[in-house]
Amino acid sequence: MSKAVRIIGIDPGLRRCGWGIIEAVDNRLRFVAGGTLTPPVDGALAERLAVLAVGINGVLDEFSPDEAAVEETFVNAGARSALILGQARGVALVTPALRGMLVAEYAANLVKKSVVGTGHAEKNQVALMVKTLLPSAVIKGADAADALAIAICHAHHRVSAARMRALA
Amino acid sequence: MSKAVRIIGIDPGLRRCGWGIIEAVDNRLRFVAGGTLTPPVDGALAERLAVLAVGINGVLDEFSPDEAAVEETFVNAGARSALILGQARGVALVTPALRGMLVAEYAANLVKKSVVGTGHAEKNQVALMVKTLLPSAVIKGADAADALAIAICHAHHRVSAARMRALA
Repeated sequence: MSKAVRIIGIDPGLRRCGWGIIEAVDNRLRFVAGGTLTPPVDGALAERLAVLAVGINGVLDEFSPDEAAVEETFVNAGARSALILGQARGVALVTPALRGMLVAEYAANLVKKSVVGTGHAEKNQVALMVKTLLPSAVIKGADAADALAIAICHAHHRVSAARMRALA
Repeated sequence: MSKAVRIIGIDPGLRRCGWGIIEAVDNRLRFVAGGTLTPPVDGALAERLAVLAVGINGVLDEFSPDEAAVEETFVNAGARSALILGQARGVALVTPALRGMLVAEYAANLVKKSVVGTGHAEKNQVALMVKTLLPSAVIKGADAADALAIAICHAHHRVSAARMRALA
């Protein structure tokens, strides 16, 4: 039996940032915790991002995940929205990386494929499959469900990714 | 005579992040230091952002500025470029904010107007005026010059901004 690995999935956003933590032992997955961070919508941007970073660090302190995974953002909105999302995403990526954690990125359609079996699944299908794969999960909202899906995707891909890094 | 205030200006970017530090006493400005951080262009995005954050923290540790200023990004590129810039910008904003520093943002044309006198100045005019306003400045490249211009803009606007905050 392999050692249990704790994985945090993060679905970044400036107003709502979903997070979900699972534990993976070989092919078995177990729900640990999940939720949504909601930094204040008012105030200076730098302070809102600092509240987001402090919130992520609080989750990392409480649950001590070993590795992190963040969805690669599919940019279909305008440049202005992309800039705003990018700022939150930068904080979501850098916060675990500054603690020395591995931070993997996965394309949105790969996350859906890992969880539902197809890259074109609807949001509610993802949430349903997350609940099926993690029966004990208490899923607090769509952002937390997405974050758990990202963590599940990383659990499925981390071993082959580690092999590819070793070969590189 | 007012107390001297140290200001860091940051011109964020994932490949080249300019920084410049000045000291302001009343209307007098003095060059302290400036340079450009160049995180590795290869490797995982989260690690590149972590190198940027560590670099900014190193500059903050060495020169102990009191306040920070970052240019508001004018998004004229596509959504993909905006996302990439946003990620670096998020790190540039959150790093001083997490140390409890005030982080102000200024529109690009306000920065140009503060330094050159018009919002439509060319890049080389900005660099020339920075050198005129800070005669002792050793300006290492265009990104460092832009960062010093942002710091100068904050020196000009910080007092009125503080008055407006006090009235709010």
